[in-house]
Amino acid sequence: MKERDIYFMEKAIRLAKKGVGSVSPNPLVGAVVVKNNKIISEGFHKKPGLAHAEAEALEKAGIYAQKAVLYVNLEPCCHFGRMPPCLDKIIKAGIKRVVIATKDPNPKVYGRSIKKLRDHNIEVTNGVCRDKAEKLNEVFFKNMKEKLPFVVAKAAQTLDGKIATSLGRSKWITTDKSRNFSRKLRDKYDAVLIGAETLRKDNPKLNGLKKKPYKIIISSSLDLPKNSYIFKNSADKIIIFTLSKLKTKSNLPKPVKIFALKEAKKGISLKQVLRKLYSYGIMSVFVEGGSYTLGRFFEEKIVDKVYFFIAPKICGGENSITSVGAAGVKKIEKCLKLQKVKIKKIDEDILIRGYLK
Amino acid sequence: MKERDIYFMEKAIRLAKKGVGSVSPNPLVGAVVVKNNKIISEGFHKKPGLAHAEAEALEKAGIYAQKAVLYVNLEPCCHFGRMPPCLDKIIKAGIKRVVIATKDPNPKVYGRSIKKLRDHNIEVTNGVCRDKAEKLNEVFFKNMKEKLPFVVAKAAQTLDGKIATSLGRSKWITTDKSRNFSRKLRDKYDAVLIGAETLRKDNPKLNGLKKKPYKIIISSSLDLPKNSYIFKNSADKIIIFTLSKLKTKSNLPKPVKIFALKEAKKGISLKQVLRKLYSYGIMSVFVEGGSYTLGRFFEEKIVDKVYFFIAPKICGGENSITSVGAAGVKKIEKCLKLQKVKIKKIDEDILIRGYLK
Repeated sequence: MKERDIYFMEKAIRLAKKGVGSVSPNPLVGAVVVKNNKIISEGFHKKPGLAHAEAEALEKAGIYAQKAVLYVNLEPCCHFGRMPPCLDKIIKAGIKRVVIATKDPNPKVYGRSIKKLRDHNIEVTNGVCRDKAEKLNEVFFKNMKEKLPFVVAKAAQTLDGKIATSLGRSKWITTDKSRNFSRKLRDKYDAVLIGAETLRKDNPKLNGLKKKPYKIIISSSLDLPKNSYIFKNSADKIIIFTLSKLKTKSNLPKPVKIFALKEAKKGISLKQVLRKLYSYGIMSVFVEGGSYTLGRFFEEKIVDKVYFFIAPKICGGENSITSVGAAGVKKIEKCLKLQKVKIKKIDEDILIRGYLK
Repeated sequence: MKERDIYFMEKAIRLAKKGVGSVSPNPLVGAVVVKNNKIISEGFHKKPGLAHAEAEALEKAGIYAQKAVLYVNLEPCCHFGRMPPCLDKIIKAGIKRVVIATKDPNPKVYGRSIKKLRDHNIEVTNGVCRDKAEKLNEVFFKNMKEKLPFVVAKAAQTLDGKIATSLGRSKWITTDKSRNFSRKLRDKYDAVLIGAETLRKDNPKLNGLKKKPYKIIISSSLDLPKNSYIFKNSADKIIIFTLSKLKTKSNLPKPVKIFALKEAKKGISLKQVLRKLYSYGIMSVFVEGGSYTLGRFFEEKIVDKVYFFIAPKICGGENSITSVGAAGVKKIEKCLKLQKVKIKKIDEDILIRGYLK
């Protein structure tokens, strides 16, 4: 029985993944309706405003949903959002058992739907493939628990930790394939974030392979080159954070949003940037540097996940630019330790991933 | 037939490895004598002055060596060194076939023994497990081809390439197990080399697990703390390189050797250090830093092999100390690229190994 549950839940999770990059601020959800050990219908959440996964699967199953088992990776909703609650649809469809991977961390739901299903004599199994399901929705879980965007820090460096030579040369450290992988990651997250220096030096496009994410720039001077590629091509998706005293100074294209923050101890408070982004509806941020910006993110201890692309090359140089700059920790025991570290080869490069906290 | 040859040659290579750390300046050699597909005797070279592998195996086999096959990972010698040539012993023992992994790169031998064996109607197969055998004796091959020691560069750094914080704190970045692995590496090589700054800051012991290797210090000032652990405990195994103008200034313990070199463009020429070490009989050098010293070794392009131990931690800091310092390359395309990269997990740490050139 257990194995069968895992099998169908993994199917639901695979379906959920089809929504990666489109469902924000919603969670990734997939659902399958199973009768006599056969899948009779499937569904996944495609984007906000469209049907929930369970609703789609039940709709497709029609009367065959009666006495069937529903597998869904997240506890179904019981509240009215843009969509009516899935709970009612499950009850109405005559489902006899619901298998869930995790409770919905949304405090409006958390366990409530499970209780209601049981109140209606529907058997509920919770916790099947929990780890996978939590990882799948790591962005959503962070959002619900901390009311902050999920923060991913990325660096592309030489083996000895350099992202540019002492002359500032940085093209290219990693291979095409690594850079492509990195563009694919941009598709997963709502926004890409860089420091002003990276904009000035690299004039990057900051697009994904399929998507144009929001582009967030941290600039305490607002001294940004108007001719940058992004100002010409994605002005409507740019958000700049600067200090309040400078707000009026901008001569940037109209659609560019500028948020001015009060000066904190180290200039712009990145925690405040995150709060602002969250309230603006940005649920995940892919921080791509440069050295100072990444350093500040680690300093403020607001990074959730880390991607380091390492080219097996030695650059050397005490004045070369290091991947993680700013002040850094003073004592070795204060270094931020990665958890759940994974290593992957991408062509000749090495990708090291992990989580913080 | 081929498979059988590989099987016995791998056995010979395993035997050869027993000499790691003891045979320098000789090569690692193992030998097996095989008759009717059975090993009748084995041998390996233990240390200079003791029997060669072939000699030992033939001696043990006695009259049973007649019409047997000899497997040996390096072409047998045909010249008088400390030992009489193995070639004569092979012929005298009545061996009918010799299987070899590689020719002896020593110009006194290179192919000559193979020819002589064939002149005596002994069948010779060369090239079985060549790659493994060349790797086994990478130190010896470098020695013979370039008349220089084999140079291994080692760093223990955070993921972002730091070996110490901005306050100079460096203990400990990697785990016990990584540091133990590193001590084991010291057992493999003739000498450990550090810069004066590392001696002053870390006061290291620089011993292996089983061996006290030579300790080489690069110091252009000769300003070294007399109370350092190594001066008290291994003065007879210390060699210091300094600039000729300072030679007389030393007040270090008597047995410490000081070599003074003429000042080159960047101070002490490390290439010259290597030449001097080679003529002194040091066939391999394990360079352990710090930042400037490693940087200078890479700059002079004299590193053969690289071991980077990476702790999955973020230190950050533009003033933290980078693993590879000095001037560094100016252009990204000038970075030194590692070949034959291998990745290994050691506890939570990641070891990245590779070759240069």
